[in-house]
Amino acid sequence: MALIVQKYGGTSVGSIDRIDAVAEKVSRFRNNGDDVVVVVSAMSGETNRLTALAHEVMEQPTPREMDVLLSTGEQVTIALLCMALEKRGYGARSFTGGQVRILTDDAHTKARIREIDSSRMHAQLQQGNVVVVAGFQGVDENGNITTLGRGGSDTTAVALAAALEADECQIYTDVKGVYTTDPRVVDDAKLLHSITFEEMLELASLGAKVLQIRAVEFAGKYKVPLRVLSTFEEGSGTLITLEEEAEMEDPAIAGIAFERDEAKLTVAGVPDVPGIAYKVIGPVSEAGIEVDVIVQNAAADGSNDITFTVKRAESDKAKEILDTVATSLQAAAVILDKKICKVSLVGVGMRSHAGIASKMFKALAEENINIEIITTSEIKISVVIEEKYLELAVRALHSAFELGETETKNIPD
Amino acid sequence: MALIVQKYGGTSVGSIDRIDAVAEKVSRFRNNGDDVVVVVSAMSGETNRLTALAHEVMEQPTPREMDVLLSTGEQVTIALLCMALEKRGYGARSFTGGQVRILTDDAHTKARIREIDSSRMHAQLQQGNVVVVAGFQGVDENGNITTLGRGGSDTTAVALAAALEADECQIYTDVKGVYTTDPRVVDDAKLLHSITFEEMLELASLGAKVLQIRAVEFAGKYKVPLRVLSTFEEGSGTLITLEEEAEMEDPAIAGIAFERDEAKLTVAGVPDVPGIAYKVIGPVSEAGIEVDVIVQNAAADGSNDITFTVKRAESDKAKEILDTVATSLQAAAVILDKKICKVSLVGVGMRSHAGIASKMFKALAEENINIEIITTSEIKISVVIEEKYLELAVRALHSAFELGETETKNIPD
Repeated sequence: MALIVQKYGGTSVGSIDRIDAVAEKVSRFRNNGDDVVVVVSAMSGETNRLTALAHEVMEQPTPREMDVLLSTGEQVTIALLCMALEKRGYGARSFTGGQVRILTDDAHTKARIREIDSSRMHAQLQQGNVVVVAGFQGVDENGNITTLGRGGSDTTAVALAAALEADECQIYTDVKGVYTTDPRVVDDAKLLHSITFEEMLELASLGAKVLQIRAVEFAGKYKVPLRVLSTFEEGSGTLITLEEEAEMEDPAIAGIAFERDEAKLTVAGVPDVPGIAYKVIGPVSEAGIEVDVIVQNAAADGSNDITFTVKRAESDKAKEILDTVATSLQAAAVILDKKICKVSLVGVGMRSHAGIASKMFKALAEENINIEIITTSEIKISVVIEEKYLELAVRALHSAFELGETETKNIPD
Repeated sequence: MALIVQKYGGTSVGSIDRIDAVAEKVSRFRNNGDDVVVVVSAMSGETNRLTALAHEVMEQPTPREMDVLLSTGEQVTIALLCMALEKRGYGARSFTGGQVRILTDDAHTKARIREIDSSRMHAQLQQGNVVVVAGFQGVDENGNITTLGRGGSDTTAVALAAALEADECQIYTDVKGVYTTDPRVVDDAKLLHSITFEEMLELASLGAKVLQIRAVEFAGKYKVPLRVLSTFEEGSGTLITLEEEAEMEDPAIAGIAFERDEAKLTVAGVPDVPGIAYKVIGPVSEAGIEVDVIVQNAAADGSNDITFTVKRAESDKAKEILDTVATSLQAAAVILDKKICKVSLVGVGMRSHAGIASKMFKALAEENINIEIITTSEIKISVVIEEKYLELAVRALHSAFELGETETKNIPD
């Protein structure tokens, strides 16, 4: 008997049959005596349909009206899910973001939650009703409808769980949980029973896209136990915990993340003077291009190379900017390499386990994979390598660190 | 420079092109210096789409959730219309029923408006913005979303006009206004320049369905000048006025209404005792069947016939009930006639003009049309006749009372 907040995404509520299946799932928790608050997204395709309507009217739709428009998507789902629950004999009440009330700032289309009034939800739960809340939306202090931006339903769920002091926030999705790496790349990638918030943040931002990063940050900040699990398959998924709760015997490495759509830019032969990194990187950042791994390498002869990675889609634009910069700095050359990728080992255990980096480099060397850039943080080591080696590298590391199903099973309890 | 409330129905906003056309129309009033509040319905087809979704979930959708679901239809339209106005450079702000706030009772799917807070709308108008309000919806005092039932957008518009003390409430529809009778039956049916609320109520309830009767009652009660006009064609439509404002030279008859889908029931040979009418009609009304024209005719021999009309679709059910009643009352027979119709002359001028009824009967007699039932009220005379004579009767009366375009034009100013 717990208070559980559950979130179901667009695919999970994509048809009446699926909404029925969600109602079935919720009813099992009710039968178990749990209080349930459900957060839902718009039915899959609906947000795109509404966005297309808006773009038919005007190229750059007014943000305020865009929020009024898009928020109807989730409103449809909450009503239908409540009906599906009522049909099964369970009391259910739907609430829009404004009704709950989820108070946000007034940054339309990308608002941030300020405050949640949980009294109305508590009252409904006490009456034995399931509370169904529209994700992704809120109201500002003047009562204008706001939205939290795409994927904001995860954030809504976590915020409600925090406000309600829920026992668990469950994010239902189309995967069984968080894996040691992408199962499409490594056959015996293992479903993680638990992972820390920090690890999850690194894995999510590095490409293992299961949860919205904002929701994970939020959950970590408010210490909301977060669980990722599948709408369509049974299983307890992956629990995202505070580090202190992590088990002692946790392996050093939680998982391996990778990003394929990267590009590497090198500005070669720039003067080795203070502020040169800013002069090179600054114009790129100011153009709204996200700069990732940065390495500056001053050679003994006084020449200086600055290398960094950007999203591949933005690399041509970055190159153009750098060509101008290079001319004004009298740099030797700007080199763009689009055929690279990034592979990262993530694990809080790194802090206490020595030798992770050397073990990683050894595994890659054994496969003759050349490392172009290395960066490290407290719980992560990333390498930039040629894209063609991506799968080979991930498999080699997965095996070297014994992350797979098979390896684990061989370890006696 | 006036304050105008305009209402556009589902057909008028049925596509992005049409929403653009509405924005164009609104902008002409703004250019003229008028303040405009626009009430819109859901895009045509949308309410049916949402209703179908609900029925896919459950046969009898929960009324509270039905309101949450259906209210999204208008919410989509208000956002899109505001965008279309903004695109043209006009400030515009959308409001749901709850945002305005239109306070209703809690009778979900058929709520009645209790109170409207006009302060938010006035503030927007003062800032030079067009206010766009979702029709058909409100909130109860607990903040639950309610709807006013089908066609409730007309009521929303009139209620807003009353609350704002607007100079005029314009209902845009797909006809040019109110005609002397149905132009599909009488070629030279004339568009009425004005009509009184009372006449409009009789015409609307008798089948000339241009406006929701509830909206007309509301407008009459709060003395809101109401105008019906076409979204798609130019013209000043029909103004619905208080009786006192009606012009002196108005003809006695405003128009001719008719209803085709009627049926007549006669319970013959019931005892002529007090309360007999109630014993016959009571069970039919209690079954939820609307009883219209009622005639009781006590013959000299002490026998007694009770005749009344009902909607044709409900006549079999009524017959069944009456068969049971007839047995218990030892009545001679129950006779059902489905092939009848009702034709009515409507006009406030009847009060001061004598001889209307006899002129009507004469016109019908000249066409050999037998009158089966006659009922009269202060501003209306209705006759029940065989259905096959409907068009003939309407044309004969239209001509006898010189209601057509041609006749009017012959009268010198």
